[in-house]
Amino acid sequence: MIKVVAKSVIKKDCLEKYNSLVTELIEETRKEKGNVSYELYQDINNPCILTFIEEWSDEESLNLHLQSIHFTTIVPKLGLLRENESEINIYRLIR
Amino acid sequence: MIKVVAKSVIKKDCLEKYNSLVTELIEETRKEKGNVSYELYQDINNPCILTFIEEWSDEESLNLHLQSIHFTTIVPKLGLLRENESEINIYRLIR
Repeated sequence: MIKVVAKSVIKKDCLEKYNSLVTELIEETRKEKGNVSYELYQDINNPCILTFIEEWSDEESLNLHLQSIHFTTIVPKLGLLRENESEINIYRLIR
Repeated sequence: MIKVVAKSVIKKDCLEKYNSLVTELIEETRKEKGNVSYELYQDINNPCILTFIEEWSDEESLNLHLQSIHFTTIVPKLGLLRENESEINIYRLIR
């Protein structure tokens, strides 16, 4: 199992647009083979921090996701709405 | 449900000590009322990045955890083994 935490800081005036743009990304990703969960979280102390926490059965499924049409078309658009680069960590469970 | 992501960068020569110190913290935390999950992850690209991903039934349970004996005694010791401050985000699920 692979866990991904992808943390973004969204421009305050772009939150609504971000929320509508991610709908298709979420719907399509959850259909992918190997996707276990794909959830979007909001920091309770800073509503501009939106973080995807994802679970994939293996690295291969994650790599296929990164090449998918919905990822390659939507994620660049999301990038325009962020304050800076996303902070992405790919994890494996140890304890 | 509350989700916590607590990301730390551990000094390379302190990984083993960190791993032994967290054992009691993990065992005691998992017994706490309101703890849904308390897992430690390691970044697959940088073994010095160790991140707790936690789930709590509510903020009250999390606050009690932060005042618990095991948290208040062990976490300061873990702090000595880190390169810098932990990056902690408290999240709620939105999508």
